[in-house]
Amino acid sequence: MFNFVFQNTTKLVFGRGQIAQLQTLIEKNKKVLVTFGGGSVKRNGVYEQVREALKDHNTVEFWGIEPNPAVETLRKAIKVGLDEQVDMVLAVGGGSVLDGTKLIAAGIACPDTDAWTIVKTGTATKQIPFASVMTLPATGSEMNNGAVISCHETKEKFAFRGDYPVFSILDPETTYSLPKHQIACSLADIVVHCFEQYMTTSGQSRVLDRWAEGVIATAMEVAPLIQADQHNYDVMADYMFSATMALNNFIRMGVTQDWSTHQIGHELTALCGVTHGESLAIVYPGTAEVLREQKKAKLLQFGERVLGVCEGSEDERVDQVIAKIEAFFKSLGLATRLSEKGIGVDVVEEIARRFNERGVHFGEAKNVTGDVAREILMKRL
Amino acid sequence: MFNFVFQNTTKLVFGRGQIAQLQTLIEKNKKVLVTFGGGSVKRNGVYEQVREALKDHNTVEFWGIEPNPAVETLRKAIKVGLDEQVDMVLAVGGGSVLDGTKLIAAGIACPDTDAWTIVKTGTATKQIPFASVMTLPATGSEMNNGAVISCHETKEKFAFRGDYPVFSILDPETTYSLPKHQIACSLADIVVHCFEQYMTTSGQSRVLDRWAEGVIATAMEVAPLIQADQHNYDVMADYMFSATMALNNFIRMGVTQDWSTHQIGHELTALCGVTHGESLAIVYPGTAEVLREQKKAKLLQFGERVLGVCEGSEDERVDQVIAKIEAFFKSLGLATRLSEKGIGVDVVEEIARRFNERGVHFGEAKNVTGDVAREILMKRL
Repeated sequence: MFNFVFQNTTKLVFGRGQIAQLQTLIEKNKKVLVTFGGGSVKRNGVYEQVREALKDHNTVEFWGIEPNPAVETLRKAIKVGLDEQVDMVLAVGGGSVLDGTKLIAAGIACPDTDAWTIVKTGTATKQIPFASVMTLPATGSEMNNGAVISCHETKEKFAFRGDYPVFSILDPETTYSLPKHQIACSLADIVVHCFEQYMTTSGQSRVLDRWAEGVIATAMEVAPLIQADQHNYDVMADYMFSATMALNNFIRMGVTQDWSTHQIGHELTALCGVTHGESLAIVYPGTAEVLREQKKAKLLQFGERVLGVCEGSEDERVDQVIAKIEAFFKSLGLATRLSEKGIGVDVVEEIARRFNERGVHFGEAKNVTGDVAREILMKRL
Repeated sequence: MFNFVFQNTTKLVFGRGQIAQLQTLIEKNKKVLVTFGGGSVKRNGVYEQVREALKDHNTVEFWGIEPNPAVETLRKAIKVGLDEQVDMVLAVGGGSVLDGTKLIAAGIACPDTDAWTIVKTGTATKQIPFASVMTLPATGSEMNNGAVISCHETKEKFAFRGDYPVFSILDPETTYSLPKHQIACSLADIVVHCFEQYMTTSGQSRVLDRWAEGVIATAMEVAPLIQADQHNYDVMADYMFSATMALNNFIRMGVTQDWSTHQIGHELTALCGVTHGESLAIVYPGTAEVLREQKKAKLLQFGERVLGVCEGSEDERVDQVIAKIEAFFKSLGLATRLSEKGIGVDVVEEIARRFNERGVHFGEAKNVTGDVAREILMKRL
């Protein structure tokens, strides 16, 4: 293991009926900006539960944080928070609402800095306290210190880091009404989050190898069960819990990380509007294929321990593992090829150009440049 | 999963040379009571590293916290802390030093309450900040909010809960010089900590089942590697990390817990001075045997996933699993029978009497009474 410092201060409040805890989790003397997405929380009963729990609190609402939250929208929310002099921000919704809220919390704390400047520096030095009621398991944002923000003007999408949520409430029952495509995208997100932290150099941590494998195995196991019955509490709880554990910094302690698939995927979202989870399903098999030598030991270990791939030569087994990963994404109903989304070589070239221009070196071996990204994407046409 | 609230605020500072971080982890204006055990840290270089890092801090030292820390000793340390008006306590040593330090931190914060009274209430309502340099991986105390304290006067041993350490520094190199018996006991402790949280009702959490299995598999895998070479950094890092992950509340989120083996083991320590880890190695096979029906699904799952036990009827497989668990403890060089420690029926009867007198109902099914404890121990004569 490499040296590391780990601290995750988020209070995780998990289970049936836990939204009511808002009443005591937030002090009565705090003025709260409550942020929402497009309105699905009004249809699934979450909004009513939040209103009931906060009926004695001083709250202001901000609606309309979109998927892949745009800085253009978030600047408006920051203005509301500053005008209303709120003390904290509560996100109610999925990872996009919370990611946006993390930037709102930073923008309110640093009123003299433009929000996109905060994102581009990569780190929010100051944020007012923020928390969440998380209704869509996927990003892990509810228990981590990262956020990904888009800029419509420049067609860019970047991540920044800052504080952890003070608390996050997760009630698996809020997932009963999620659209099937959102669940599919979120399962791909969970699995690829783990791959980014696990499918790297082998032999770094016996415990964390098994923990990453455990989260991936869970996501793969519950996927067909969710398709069969989206109202099974235990299954939806395992699903929701696995999303949080996939990206709360637990499985990355002291190990190298990849993240090149996410970086390439962010470009597909920024340039072509591909949903985040689907972008990962398209890109990941290409990343594994192009970097198969570098990742071979881990691909084989994953194949043996999680997929039961034990027959054949090493190369044949790696082929089987990559094919099974793609088959899993397909089983979710997701596109796994660029052509399925109408994306061609021109976009591939634009991404390669951007990466080369930025001089990036992504991945655990810092070898994913624009040219390697092109190679990965050309395998996914 | 059951509803749960999880929050673990400890900053974990892990790796080679990290003791030097003390210099910045503790503010210069804080007066620190530094607590130690019997002096092994003077022989392995840890003491010098701590002194060097804290050379510009105002510190007071307290030496002599024994294994199974006794309230009689800790009262003296509390008096030193109060007389010297310290702001925080830093434990340097193993789990016993840190457990004792947790009570010292509580005693200093509550000077009007006797320390044993704090233990017996089960919860410390107030503690001054405390932290650790952990040199013996075993108890998980470095990243949890519990502590176990003994009372020589009454020959009792009880746990209490309170705050988490502010930070804990773990440098795997500090384990290079640990006596082989201490490592053996700590490996048993790690494995049984996981059993207490895992070998219960089945089907509660797919992720946490796999995480507990992952920690146990790691401990079992590194055990012979440590015996072969105690200076392999990666192996000792996996060992040290597994101890922390076994008992930092991660693998117990939303699942039932047992802890009856620990309760029975504490009595063997309190009455006969059996080392904690060895007491668990003696008791656990009895707990698994007596409660084999209740724990059957988990014993089978553990057998299949971790021990490769797949042949035979369910009962035969359970027999194999329990035999393999005992064989693992034996491979560490630990006693697994009471008679090996010269303990007979009289002690068994005293433990049964105490449990019946206290009216305890331990275990995930709340069915481990004094009579069941007797049954467990009679299988371990």
